[in-house]
Amino acid sequence: MASANNSKYPLVLIIGGGFGGLEVANQLKDKPVDVLMLDKHNYHTFQPLLYQVATGGLEAESIAFSLRKNFADQKNFRFRIAEVFKVNADKNSVTTSIGEIDYDYLVIATGSTTNFFGNKEIEKFAMPMKSIPEALNLRYLILQNLEEAVRTPSKEDREPLLSFVLVGAGPTGVELAGALAELRNHILTKDYPELKKEEMKVYLVDFLPKVLGPFSESASKAAKDFLTKMGVEVLLNVKVESYDGNEIKFEGGKSIRTKNVIWSAGVMGVVPEGIAKENIERGNRLSVDTINRVKGTENVFAIGDVAAMITDETPKGHPGVAQVAIQQGKHVGKNIMHIINGEPTEPFKYNDKGSLATIGRNKAVADLGKIRFQGFFAWLVWMFVHLISLLGGRNKVIVFINWVASYLNNNGGNRLIIRKFEREELPKKDKQESKID
Amino acid sequence: MASANNSKYPLVLIIGGGFGGLEVANQLKDKPVDVLMLDKHNYHTFQPLLYQVATGGLEAESIAFSLRKNFADQKNFRFRIAEVFKVNADKNSVTTSIGEIDYDYLVIATGSTTNFFGNKEIEKFAMPMKSIPEALNLRYLILQNLEEAVRTPSKEDREPLLSFVLVGAGPTGVELAGALAELRNHILTKDYPELKKEEMKVYLVDFLPKVLGPFSESASKAAKDFLTKMGVEVLLNVKVESYDGNEIKFEGGKSIRTKNVIWSAGVMGVVPEGIAKENIERGNRLSVDTINRVKGTENVFAIGDVAAMITDETPKGHPGVAQVAIQQGKHVGKNIMHIINGEPTEPFKYNDKGSLATIGRNKAVADLGKIRFQGFFAWLVWMFVHLISLLGGRNKVIVFINWVASYLNNNGGNRLIIRKFEREELPKKDKQESKID
Repeated sequence: MASANNSKYPLVLIIGGGFGGLEVANQLKDKPVDVLMLDKHNYHTFQPLLYQVATGGLEAESIAFSLRKNFADQKNFRFRIAEVFKVNADKNSVTTSIGEIDYDYLVIATGSTTNFFGNKEIEKFAMPMKSIPEALNLRYLILQNLEEAVRTPSKEDREPLLSFVLVGAGPTGVELAGALAELRNHILTKDYPELKKEEMKVYLVDFLPKVLGPFSESASKAAKDFLTKMGVEVLLNVKVESYDGNEIKFEGGKSIRTKNVIWSAGVMGVVPEGIAKENIERGNRLSVDTINRVKGTENVFAIGDVAAMITDETPKGHPGVAQVAIQQGKHVGKNIMHIINGEPTEPFKYNDKGSLATIGRNKAVADLGKIRFQGFFAWLVWMFVHLISLLGGRNKVIVFINWVASYLNNNGGNRLIIRKFEREELPKKDKQESKID
Repeated sequence: MASANNSKYPLVLIIGGGFGGLEVANQLKDKPVDVLMLDKHNYHTFQPLLYQVATGGLEAESIAFSLRKNFADQKNFRFRIAEVFKVNADKNSVTTSIGEIDYDYLVIATGSTTNFFGNKEIEKFAMPMKSIPEALNLRYLILQNLEEAVRTPSKEDREPLLSFVLVGAGPTGVELAGALAELRNHILTKDYPELKKEEMKVYLVDFLPKVLGPFSESASKAAKDFLTKMGVEVLLNVKVESYDGNEIKFEGGKSIRTKNVIWSAGVMGVVPEGIAKENIERGNRLSVDTINRVKGTENVFAIGDVAAMITDETPKGHPGVAQVAIQQGKHVGKNIMHIINGEPTEPFKYNDKGSLATIGRNKAVADLGKIRFQGFFAWLVWMFVHLISLLGGRNKVIVFINWVASYLNNNGGNRLIIRKFEREELPKKDKQESKID
């Protein structure tokens, strides 16, 4: 490729335009470095709202923002659409879909992808939801199955089309369960007068004994109560055994006939080839020191979901949430400048601002340090935090209008099938990077 | 399929949820008939704004509206996603992708698709823009070629990536040319600082001696002047000979190296099988009488782009515009009720409200009967008419916000590549119906 760096400044190469990568680049604005960002897509994805794209409440494009547009005012920033295959740390370069690119400093901010824990059958039939194309595929599958249910005369044949099983009761599973329950409770019979509300079932399954595992007890309990009241069947202490596209089986013998299984039971880091195996931790994450430098390297950093900073205080690393990526991104940007300037680096300290999850209209849970609350006020806080975090004024306004419209008429969103989802034709997974070493 | 009609009322089957089909259904609200609409998509497409989706100014979903949602309050309305393959007029049924469906009255409102006039090579390489998937493919192609240009060191190799040739200078070609010129003039170097404005070329080609053929002379002249001032090269009296994906050749020897050819040089009706050849007119349209009844049938109607009402006053039929489809849709709805009630039918009279086309910011042309004007006021009228014609309050608000944002900062739209366009993988054409008899 045409070299983006024929200047006198060192090149900081950032792989990934997620929450972490964005902050590294922001931090390096007007600094004496050149910044080159690579991403498979030309946009940043606001992942916390993917579930609303999947359930038709929001347009895909209102939670995406052009990376080029975002950095249009940053003179030292360049962007390329590219997939990174391999890191060649020994020669300070990466091998990509658009050729080999040299760097002076590398920041791996590739995030995570769905972890099916090696079960190929489940991977084939269950739907992941970690990217916009995946969220759209999920939306199309849900709507296509509702359409098929309408034209299916036998109640028995309709059952698997109208049963939705969400595996994994973390924030993603809980939020999806809530959104699907609202679809059933408020929209189903308006859009599909031939169907009965009672025929649509939403199941939320987890092998843990509680929903929202890492949240406080009060938040977990409130979330479960909200879901149950909305008609979601919450199945805890239940482990998935198999799913063949028609029936999901659980350990112990229970099973559910369903054509809709959404898998949010785990994630794994997206690691390019070329990193020594001993520096890859549990969850396929890169082992980093306290300044997010990948162990065994001099000038390669990893942040966010793909990094595991194992210390006495964080024996499992940090949680895979946007806040960690954002804070580590800022921090790495600063430390790279410290290194360039010959100054001492500063170790990373995570400032946990708390956790939020929404279940539906007027229903959310908030764990903000020791302040814990649930219900309407938590829901307002959730909306506010998500709106201000969205990139782009236009996106903020458009999401806000969509939420207001949904709130007023209980029938938000357009629920369009722009492209038919066909399992054999479209790539089901949309990984940032290809495979691991 | 499960019959949608086990009631005592006659079934009116409408194929297509475009401007015409919508009006038929609207007209039959609360009438003693059952209405079943079939469409390949679950949404209505506001085709006049497709060019803004293609050039990244609007989200696809803001110009689409759920057909189910639109008719949620209409008790006698049912909808199915289906492709209609064949009309079996002798047994009052259609053969579709979801089985055979009986009707009492059939309205064919399938619209038109791009006409490549039999040139298979051009059809393979030129981009059509008649549906949302096609407009998105076009957007992705444009953006992918800009991305490729950024990483192409040779100026000669960048040329075909940065040359855009629009064939057909009707409203679609003119509006696309204007939008691409604005992309070049205001956005290109913001998003792609490596590129030079002068390197991007926009050509508008037509074999006629004027742009906007059916418009008044003053509108044609103004549109051409606007385009020229914006930097579009307008090539008139020029006939395309061939396009192989890399170079478009014109009769007489001239050619342009380009990877971006957009074809809006003609349309043809989308006609299901089963209609006798003698009832298919020029442009693959169904020959209809003055109440839009397909010749040779008793109870089959055709409206809009797929209908040709040849009379002494309209020797070529009506123009293929939304207004004709809307008025014929209303009219057919009324006449079907007249027939059911044993009342005399009323012949269709087209009320031509005039024509509008926009070229860019503050630039449009309006031919409203004898009132003709161009420039800023025409542009305001154009925006107003398009906004009020959009389905759905939310869509109106969102399109309006997008336009205001674009107007204020000259950098509207998000220009996202949600799914990579690959010529071999995605269907380039997205026809309403399959093929003709």
